[in-house]
Amino acid sequence: MIRFECDYAEGAHPLILKRMAETNLEQTTGYGEDAFCANARNIIRRLCGKETADVHFLMGGTQTNKTVIASVLRPHQGVLSATTGHINVHETGAIEATGHKILALPSENGKLTALQVEQAFLEHCNDANHEHAVQPGMVYISHPSECGTVYSRQELQALSDVCRRHRLPLFMDGARLGYGLAAENNDLSLSDIADLCDVFYIGGTKVGALFGEAVVITDDVLKKDFRYVMKQNGGILAKGRLLGIQFETLFSEGLYFEIAHHAVQMSLQIRDAFCAKGITFMCESPTNQQFPILTEEQIARLSEKYAFEHWKKIDATHTAVRFCTSWATRQDDVLSLIGDIW
Amino acid sequence: MIRFECDYAEGAHPLILKRMAETNLEQTTGYGEDAFCANARNIIRRLCGKETADVHFLMGGTQTNKTVIASVLRPHQGVLSATTGHINVHETGAIEATGHKILALPSENGKLTALQVEQAFLEHCNDANHEHAVQPGMVYISHPSECGTVYSRQELQALSDVCRRHRLPLFMDGARLGYGLAAENNDLSLSDIADLCDVFYIGGTKVGALFGEAVVITDDVLKKDFRYVMKQNGGILAKGRLLGIQFETLFSEGLYFEIAHHAVQMSLQIRDAFCAKGITFMCESPTNQQFPILTEEQIARLSEKYAFEHWKKIDATHTAVRFCTSWATRQDDVLSLIGDIW
Amino acid sequence: MIRFECDYAEGAHPLILKRMAETNLEQTTGYGEDAFCANARNIIRRLCGKETADVHFLMGGTQTNKTVIASVLRPHQGVLSATTGHINVHETGAIEATGHKILALPSENGKLTALQVEQAFLEHCNDANHEHAVQPGMVYISHPSECGTVYSRQELQALSDVCRRHRLPLFMDGARLGYGLAAENNDLSLSDIADLCDVFYIGGTKVGALFGEAVVITDDVLKKDFRYVMKQNGGILAKGRLLGIQFETLFSEGLYFEIAHHAVQMSLQIRDAFCAKGITFMCESPTNQQFPILTEEQIARLSEKYAFEHWKKIDATHTAVRFCTSWATRQDDVLSLIGDIW
Amino acid sequence: MIRFECDYAEGAHPLILKRMAETNLEQTTGYGEDAFCANARNIIRRLCGKETADVHFLMGGTQTNKTVIASVLRPHQGVLSATTGHINVHETGAIEATGHKILALPSENGKLTALQVEQAFLEHCNDANHEHAVQPGMVYISHPSECGTVYSRQELQALSDVCRRHRLPLFMDGARLGYGLAAENNDLSLSDIADLCDVFYIGGTKVGALFGEAVVITDDVLKKDFRYVMKQNGGILAKGRLLGIQFETLFSEGLYFEIAHHAVQMSLQIRDAFCAKGITFMCESPTNQQFPILTEEQIARLSEKYAFEHWKKIDATHTAVRFCTSWATRQDDVLSLIGDIW
Repeated sequence: MIRFECDYAEGAHPLILKRMAETNLEQTTGYGEDAFCANARNIIRRLCGKETADVHFLMGGTQTNKTVIASVLRPHQGVLSATTGHINVHETGAIEATGHKILALPSENGKLTALQVEQAFLEHCNDANHEHAVQPGMVYISHPSECGTVYSRQELQALSDVCRRHRLPLFMDGARLGYGLAAENNDLSLSDIADLCDVFYIGGTKVGALFGEAVVITDDVLKKDFRYVMKQNGGILAKGRLLGIQFETLFSEGLYFEIAHHAVQMSLQIRDAFCAKGITFMCESPTNQQFPILTEEQIARLSEKYAFEHWKKIDATHTAVRFCTSWATRQDDVLSLIGDIW
Repeated sequence: MIRFECDYAEGAHPLILKRMAETNLEQTTGYGEDAFCANARNIIRRLCGKETADVHFLMGGTQTNKTVIASVLRPHQGVLSATTGHINVHETGAIEATGHKILALPSENGKLTALQVEQAFLEHCNDANHEHAVQPGMVYISHPSECGTVYSRQELQALSDVCRRHRLPLFMDGARLGYGLAAENNDLSLSDIADLCDVFYIGGTKVGALFGEAVVITDDVLKKDFRYVMKQNGGILAKGRLLGIQFETLFSEGLYFEIAHHAVQMSLQIRDAFCAKGITFMCESPTNQQFPILTEEQIARLSEKYAFEHWKKIDATHTAVRFCTSWATRQDDVLSLIGDIW
Repeated sequence: MIRFECDYAEGAHPLILKRMAETNLEQTTGYGEDAFCANARNIIRRLCGKETADVHFLMGGTQTNKTVIASVLRPHQGVLSATTGHINVHETGAIEATGHKILALPSENGKLTALQVEQAFLEHCNDANHEHAVQPGMVYISHPSECGTVYSRQELQALSDVCRRHRLPLFMDGARLGYGLAAENNDLSLSDIADLCDVFYIGGTKVGALFGEAVVITDDVLKKDFRYVMKQNGGILAKGRLLGIQFETLFSEGLYFEIAHHAVQMSLQIRDAFCAKGITFMCESPTNQQFPILTEEQIARLSEKYAFEHWKKIDATHTAVRFCTSWATRQDDVLSLIGDIW
Repeated sequence: MIRFECDYAEGAHPLILKRMAETNLEQTTGYGEDAFCANARNIIRRLCGKETADVHFLMGGTQTNKTVIASVLRPHQGVLSATTGHINVHETGAIEATGHKILALPSENGKLTALQVEQAFLEHCNDANHEHAVQPGMVYISHPSECGTVYSRQELQALSDVCRRHRLPLFMDGARLGYGLAAENNDLSLSDIADLCDVFYIGGTKVGALFGEAVVITDDVLKKDFRYVMKQNGGILAKGRLLGIQFETLFSEGLYFEIAHHAVQMSLQIRDAFCAKGITFMCESPTNQQFPILTEEQIARLSEKYAFEHWKKIDATHTAVRFCTSWATRQDDVLSLIGDIW
């Protein structure tokens, strides 16, 4: 079975394991206060063009999302998100467990628009009974989204403008950020993102690390006491060095960008192969996930050799499925798949 | 200004104030453990045909909803509700503040169908990643709904059947239950409701009391330790006798049913008057709330003499508004309004 | 049975019921936005000497405590309190249910000292692992305390100084504030309290009202969005006028102070009677609660005619009990009790 | 600087890194549903003598504690713990953040006694106002405790008896369980622990793993839906295989027990060396942590070459400090330390 079902089917990029082995017996203090973490933080700050940003390392996406959101909001506030947002559908109510409603706005392609945020905010303010409703307190976006789509520079700028006008912190879930930066026609740099968002994270788990997400906080108000909230959410790793070592390895010489580029190239080959056969897609993805719409028969045939995820029933006879590539995807496996697309 | 904007614009039915004054200097123990409460509980049990039901008195709707839901659910569970449900839109995230997601299902008329609940439940169970999603743990309905509509006996039976088949406690928010029991063509008795729901409440605040909701729990499992959860939610009134006295007065000789009947008659007169002028409604309501769809000009004209609520923008030139009647609505005021409907 | 077991054994001061009856059929808007509430707010602001304070009305103590504390703290913060504090022992974990730890400091007499607060704060700051511990985020005191004791002006000044130096909002639970203002040798005015605390409440439930607590917020930062948090905690009463009417009645012509004075006089008579028989007390109380330490035999004898609360086992043969007086305590009942103290 | 400050100063036991490297490119499904995890679960079940136990892998101690406790308790319940318990002092209110009070019982040596639990439980039940207090809902113990002490078989049996008599689930935090099993004079086997506790965990982070805790649930009631609560708490690792591989390596051929034995031997050498110089200890520890009480001068001298933690001020001139050993502690470093103890 060749697995395209997710981007976390293997361990870590070999250079990470190598670095872990080399440093294994060095003694360090715990909880992310070691030299590896310090160095990784500096590298990331530099790449973001934000010397004064706070950088924190957490273990996984759900943990990071709930920590950031709980840290930002007051009790009566909620977070605006696309209905498709990971926090809204795939985290077992982790956000609600911290006491906050997710104010879900409809989305077909995984993205929010500046206009949607503006309208939701104004609708709340103009409601005579607004104190009886949850107050929008921040905006959550994922980039790339759960549908593989990305924001353009212009779209993100517009979102950022609305958010700043209404003092809504803008939070980007970058669990797959590498694949967004490597997306076809991408025009957003890390430094743009750091300028336009108030807090975001650079995903490691799905882009070459064993695990780990690097949170970057650029807004001074949001920096305060963030490590307390991390600890409360189980987000301070005892052997914090493991996160420092991984992000050092990924970012010190561009490895992160290289492997993301590879994954996206593999994905686009798959996309083009389906396209060439006249297959349509749930949405247009320039990143490492493709969502072709297949018949049951097509699914059955491909399932003999390949693992991929059933994503969404489209109609009685069609289902959108998901093919994921990653840093670890082999060209041979992609060619094999392409060959098997009737 | 004559107020039709809500069903809590006045104090309490005069008999309640009279009873309070008569008993004012009697000394009782606190926290609902007095003889007035005991008697009111017995009367309610009898009317529900459930000698073994637990009956508890709380102060208001939001408090009652959050107490019941927090008491029933485990952390990873959510509550199925219509999108229009009070808990979903008008309680400032009180349910989420107890840690639980509201699993909102679309509704045009304020009601949930048995089919919707069945589908939502099965969809969750059949999701390969169901552990990554909030588990439906109970069902919330309001009767009458926020749109003034009611469930028929058959509809409630069907909901109850689905819920019991899947072990989902069925919770009815009866903040306006009196008006439901008095609804045109109603075929549901208190005792039917007690049979078909696992927990529900009989609203006092909007039906003649100063304040107060009587929770009836018929399911033995849900009875356990409920008073602890009430206390935790600020729901045990020090002078609990005030609730006992009010519900005694409302239920010992049928006052509750009488005043609800009056309110509904007033409401139907208003409905018929709008109807006669060709006005349409947001939905058909046989209870004490009417939602005619008016033009800006019509709204402006009526606003000169009457207070009523703007409910929902229907299109560029029309808005659904709400006219509420109550136990206190005077026939003269209704006739005046009717006379002013062009 | 003559009841001295609590200060909420009767209904309300008759003037309150009278006012409710007089205004019963007036129509008002709901949720505390009526003219009665507006007027009560103004009266309270004036009495506190704080024209810009925010004043809000809630229904009971637990609800008020959890609303205020949840509104003030960030997730990683806790509230410093005496171990005896109501929030720590008698609210079924209502504060923890909002996500916050109570940082309990030992107290024999129900009070916190400025020194204790200072030390607790500094100990946290000086802990190398402070991010692994709950951060003190505010200070909760009750005045009078649960033991009947009060703060002197000097003590409250010292507490306030420490709190402001360390930016810890000081919150006074004034569920029995009237009895504190009427305490023997009291040197604190409402206006002193408004100067020295950042948020406090004036208890109605235990001082003549049917129910109700008036929260006064003097710190601008704490004012923001408080009504949202009230609503989330079920603390916005539909018929909010009921609270306005009660506080208007209590404060417009000094009724609150009068009835509190009466209660304290009754209490001091009881104290002096026990004293005269050589009985000692759990602590010295100049307010409406007395805690004499009695033998089982003495308790048994008094229990024949009087209800009072068993408070705390002192040793194998002695128990501290509580006698409470209130606005409703009759001089005859006190004389009867005094006569029965062997 | 030679570090004795904690038991997580290095990476992982080299065999673990080796196994990770060997399996790195194998593709597996995520979220702990892979063959490595399945195998590790079976090995652990076998070692515990509980073929039907549920075994789950989480990332760290705080996460595990909050997940287990949130999963077990209803909203009005709290967890009994020693005041010294990790959940009470070193997790930034993680338990309270899930809504639950920690009912802390005094402890000098980090342990709870059966008598303490019995008394706390009965005191609650016998309180006339018990509904106004948090209900004890489970018992948390750490073994070894935060003070290095362990429970004997008899002590744990007594605790278990009390807990079962009162239906209080007994939860053992085994973050350092290996060192407890290897403790001097230990008479508790893994299988005893599985018999006497209802849920416990076997710590990996501090005993040779990069990270990871293996939760073992023996009580059928507590098993239900545990993975949902894990996910909600960010406790389902995407690359769950990493946990499976680590626990497989630690337990398939006894490595866990071997390295724990080594650590304890190193610790006892340090203990004996201090003893021989007449130094006393904060408490008697037969495990991998030693808490000698030193003067400022002694601390200053040792600090030149060794890192260790300041634990607790004992008096004006003495402080208890902590020396930790681990699987990675080198005999040479211990000899060097011993040589430097004047």
